[in-house]
Amino acid sequence: MKDTESTISPARLEAFSDGVLAIIITIMVLEIHSPEGHSLSDWKQSISLLLAYLFSFIMIAIYWNNHHHLLRATKNITAIVMWANMALLFFLSLIPVTTAWVGANENYKHSWPIALYATVCLFAGLSFYALTLAILKADKTNIKIANLNKSYKGIVSPILYILAICLAFINPYVAIAIMLSTAALWFIPDKRLTN
Amino acid sequence: MKDTESTISPARLEAFSDGVLAIIITIMVLEIHSPEGHSLSDWKQSISLLLAYLFSFIMIAIYWNNHHHLLRATKNITAIVMWANMALLFFLSLIPVTTAWVGANENYKHSWPIALYATVCLFAGLSFYALTLAILKADKTNIKIANLNKSYKGIVSPILYILAICLAFINPYVAIAIMLSTAALWFIPDKRLTN
Amino acid sequence: MKDTESTISPARLEAFSDGVLAIIITIMVLEIHSPEGHSLSDWKQSISLLLAYLFSFIMIAIYWNNHHHLLRATKNITAIVMWANMALLFFLSLIPVTTAWVGANENYKHSWPIALYATVCLFAGLSFYALTLAILKADKTNIKIANLNKSYKGIVSPILYILAICLAFINPYVAIAIMLSTAALWFIPDKRLTN
Amino acid sequence: MKDTESTISPARLEAFSDGVLAIIITIMVLEIHSPEGHSLSDWKQSISLLLAYLFSFIMIAIYWNNHHHLLRATKNITAIVMWANMALLFFLSLIPVTTAWVGANENYKHSWPIALYATVCLFAGLSFYALTLAILKADKTNIKIANLNKSYKGIVSPILYILAICLAFINPYVAIAIMLSTAALWFIPDKRLTN
Repeated sequence: MKDTESTISPARLEAFSDGVLAIIITIMVLEIHSPEGHSLSDWKQSISLLLAYLFSFIMIAIYWNNHHHLLRATKNITAIVMWANMALLFFLSLIPVTTAWVGANENYKHSWPIALYATVCLFAGLSFYALTLAILKADKTNIKIANLNKSYKGIVSPILYILAICLAFINPYVAIAIMLSTAALWFIPDKRLTN
Repeated sequence: MKDTESTISPARLEAFSDGVLAIIITIMVLEIHSPEGHSLSDWKQSISLLLAYLFSFIMIAIYWNNHHHLLRATKNITAIVMWANMALLFFLSLIPVTTAWVGANENYKHSWPIALYATVCLFAGLSFYALTLAILKADKTNIKIANLNKSYKGIVSPILYILAICLAFINPYVAIAIMLSTAALWFIPDKRLTN
Repeated sequence: MKDTESTISPARLEAFSDGVLAIIITIMVLEIHSPEGHSLSDWKQSISLLLAYLFSFIMIAIYWNNHHHLLRATKNITAIVMWANMALLFFLSLIPVTTAWVGANENYKHSWPIALYATVCLFAGLSFYALTLAILKADKTNIKIANLNKSYKGIVSPILYILAICLAFINPYVAIAIMLSTAALWFIPDKRLTN
Repeated sequence: MKDTESTISPARLEAFSDGVLAIIITIMVLEIHSPEGHSLSDWKQSISLLLAYLFSFIMIAIYWNNHHHLLRATKNITAIVMWANMALLFFLSLIPVTTAWVGANENYKHSWPIALYATVCLFAGLSFYALTLAILKADKTNIKIANLNKSYKGIVSPILYILAICLAFINPYVAIAIMLSTAALWFIPDKRLTN
């Protein structure tokens, strides 16, 4: 009884994570500054940034959704689970600055901003996968998460991001296409968690 | 039983939305910089921005209030409801930067800032309407929301915003008057939800 | 039954207000920029700002504390209560920019920054008083808040702030002393609410 | 009964603190601006800042974790507990600006930024210790926290920080090593609270 009382409650970890995700998703927009002029054409140089912001907004929303379903299926929060979750939040907190760099890159023609963005996504994805494994280790009888672990997504995503990083140096647009596809994979949360 | 356990809880979606709205309403003020001088007259050029901030603050407060009543009447959160809600938050997250552009427009004499602001309001309004429809679709027996759907507001607001966008190019002040009237419509939440 | 179900819950209004207050108290620090140099003396010109930040932090903390006790004693949230609360949050959201202006005013020798800060405090104080009255009107049998209403604080504070505004033009330091005293009055929440 | 109803609930104090910590941990990243160029080497001058950000992120995460365990073991929130908690939040809110100063200090060769960072950590540590004592005083029969009080950590940390402040003027890297060690001490929350 004392044990359940004193570990971190999943609800609180989720509330803290929600707070951080809500802030990340909102402060990104602070990077979009209104232009000097008063005409619509003055926004032209901000289009790259606006599209990058839209993509990052959807990315964080997808993480929020999947994270929510993962933590709802969780009973025990160990120190390892807590730190895997913090690692996920850390890498997601780097999304705003990376988005700003991608957005400052007109027409996305430069390779490095795209590659760095994909790298941050890679580490966020790996942290999410580590979080899944840590939760499973803490609660071996959790069938929902055990089933999830057999899912291809957790392994396929990092591979796709590594591919995107490499291809960014050949053609940034191919790398962007891969990242859009990876996001699409996660758009609907895993049926094993939601059903 | 497993079903109710694993879908997104309305409470959590509301808490996340509240977090985002609280941040949006507060970071807007970061655009108001204190003037260089130490006299009251140094604020003169900030008056447009302060009034725009006041209006946006009331707008977000109205959305928070109506959103709160809508979600309290909601039982099921489907993936479509969740993404309609995210679309609403996305368009509202563009309010701070659009407010800054309107505020940089002294005496609101330029048309584009007003028209863009009205456009963001239009998409936010459409997202809210889509959210209402998505909630209704997920829970067809929900009489409260079904009644709300017959309400004129959800349809009248987008029409008024389209009118404001067009008129902004003839006379920005008429567009502003229309937007103030639209806000007034929503000032008190729908009686069908509150009673 | 439907009535209690559909009005805003005090818990949710408090959670939203807490979110806004947490953001206000934290973003203020964004105005404190680290100096160019690498020596302690480079902070000298930031001392006015640091002290102003400390005072505003305590101000917001006092509001959080008193607001918490007020809302805990509240049963019904009417539209008027909700908007009085929003007015309070609006005026408190102006604290960061006013603090920055006071802090840019070396040695607090200029009158206007101090007077404007006191004006924002005055309106925040009046909003808090209006909130108390609105809650009392919505729940006339609430003895705790009725007793509070007889309290001298809600009336004395605005008078002290008006005094501070006037005296700021004669001697800013006297105005500061009055504001410090007013804050001290509210440091411990009203015994009528806490006992 | 009236007593328990009207004091601050530990849950609410924790929720407010969580909000502030979530904002602090996230706004720090706003100080990391994307470089002008579009190549990876353009980040070279940001490495000091990125490492400082990583350390501060872990620091705040550790505080969140320990604070969570401390408040979960708490029953009564007195005015002194509330203000000790506010003092802790105040000093932690100075972490972002101090991190920015440390990060602007290439290769961490200057002493003052490191010493100031350690000073902020010292006061945060003392506030946490004061919070522990205040909670213990309010609830003398709380065995968990009484045991914690006998812990060496609460006393050792401030001593280590004082050491780091002094040694920063001889060799900043030694000071950094001491701060890393102090963080390591708190990485796993006190077993007396978690078991």
